[in-house]
Amino acid sequence: MLGRATGASIEQGIGDDAAVLRSSGRLVWTVDSAVEGVHFDGRFMTLEDVGFRSFQAAVSDLAAMGARPVAALSALALPERFSDRDLTRLLRGQAEASRALGCPIVGGNFTRARELSIHTTALGSARSPVRRSGARAGDELWLFGDVGLAAAGLAALIRGRVRGAAFRRCIAAFRRPTARLEDGATLPGRAHAALDVSDGLAGDAGHLARASRVKVVISAELLARVLRPELVRAAASLDRTPLGFALFGGEDYALLAAGPAARRPNNAAG
Amino acid sequence: MLGRATGASIEQGIGDDAAVLRSSGRLVWTVDSAVEGVHFDGRFMTLEDVGFRSFQAAVSDLAAMGARPVAALSALALPERFSDRDLTRLLRGQAEASRALGCPIVGGNFTRARELSIHTTALGSARSPVRRSGARAGDELWLFGDVGLAAAGLAALIRGRVRGAAFRRCIAAFRRPTARLEDGATLPGRAHAALDVSDGLAGDAGHLARASRVKVVISAELLARVLRPELVRAAASLDRTPLGFALFGGEDYALLAAGPAARRPNNAAG
Repeated sequence: MLGRATGASIEQGIGDDAAVLRSSGRLVWTVDSAVEGVHFDGRFMTLEDVGFRSFQAAVSDLAAMGARPVAALSALALPERFSDRDLTRLLRGQAEASRALGCPIVGGNFTRARELSIHTTALGSARSPVRRSGARAGDELWLFGDVGLAAAGLAALIRGRVRGAAFRRCIAAFRRPTARLEDGATLPGRAHAALDVSDGLAGDAGHLARASRVKVVISAELLARVLRPELVRAAASLDRTPLGFALFGGEDYALLAAGPAARRPNNAAG
Repeated sequence: MLGRATGASIEQGIGDDAAVLRSSGRLVWTVDSAVEGVHFDGRFMTLEDVGFRSFQAAVSDLAAMGARPVAALSALALPERFSDRDLTRLLRGQAEASRALGCPIVGGNFTRARELSIHTTALGSARSPVRRSGARAGDELWLFGDVGLAAAGLAALIRGRVRGAAFRRCIAAFRRPTARLEDGATLPGRAHAALDVSDGLAGDAGHLARASRVKVVISAELLARVLRPELVRAAASLDRTPLGFALFGGEDYALLAAGPAARRPNNAAG
């Protein structure tokens, strides 16, 4: 395979006991679950959103390792009340995310259940996967993508505040997050450690610190400078602070990395 | 990698955003779900059984493709009432199956949910995966492992008939099935098509027939000859027929394959 140190291709997709891939090199492999009433609420997003978002969340773990997506399998647990039309909507959202990320769905499983849940497993390839545990004392923290918007979007939806550009931007961030594959791809060779921000910046920075056995210091002043103006406006309208959403609100799927200042990528907020 | 046409090794297990594997050659990949009230009922099996059985069921898909297991990820959705002790039991059953099958659990995901469910994704390696769709007119059908026992075991449990060697054997088949990896490994180069019998022999033979666009004929006389005496005795005590359990009862995880008579493996019932 000239010119490709890692690679993977799909030989058999949906319809057999298992999918068949051909691969060489390092594979990065994750599974992520989205459960109704825990990860999503049908009052606040469509089934297209549910499918789209659950797929992006799974692939975000590949982005955080600096991997390129290879393929995904989707296990769906569907309640009896779930109609064919509902299923079509859910699959449409998954397919949209799958196309946008270049990560084909090559198989999966359907089962009945009392509650709706989606379990997505994704494989990626990476020459040098970036782990959580490599950060060193003296490293900078780099942030790729926005934080706080998704949490502000959910807060706006709960309070019925859906009008205006700031709320609309936050609600879109909540319903339609994006796995930051291109940012992640810049990390190998630069970052010592990385993860995706799914629980909120404070919690996830703590995960990185513990895995790397370092102390992480986030400057509120520096963080405040990179927050979206829409977040600042939405937070003000909701009587909340933008830093609160950024630090303690999750599900933006930004990437947080640690590395030496000299290697900071251009696309990062340091 | 001298002397290994396919191979895989694990570089990073539990604790990061994703597991990291090194692989070369063909990979076979599956996901399988076990949902409380659909696939299992806490009245009829322990949580150790639930963990064991769900893991075997997932790996059975690899066996049916003639693959060797590489690793698995486990996504668990746990209700609030689920205690740490419950979790320990479930994980113990998974670990037992994982060890028995040589398929390490290298990561996964935990989430809250209203109902208990287990979603297992497994990767295997196979030089020449055996698909459902290759059967040809004139092929024999080969059966590896017992059919009907698990369904008879469940029927016995529902009727409270748990005493006696025949029922005990059937109940054990229901609670503790085994993915037939060694039988599956004999299939590449011999079988034209294969699958695992999870829905009952009649239904799964139909799946093979449709995928291969052939007609499948199962001789009741030949099938009756390979049924376990324990199944025959249990069926009689339950006023049911052993052939009924074998044809229409599922979850034994036997393997069904089609291939030319000259290549029939010694371990198959033809």
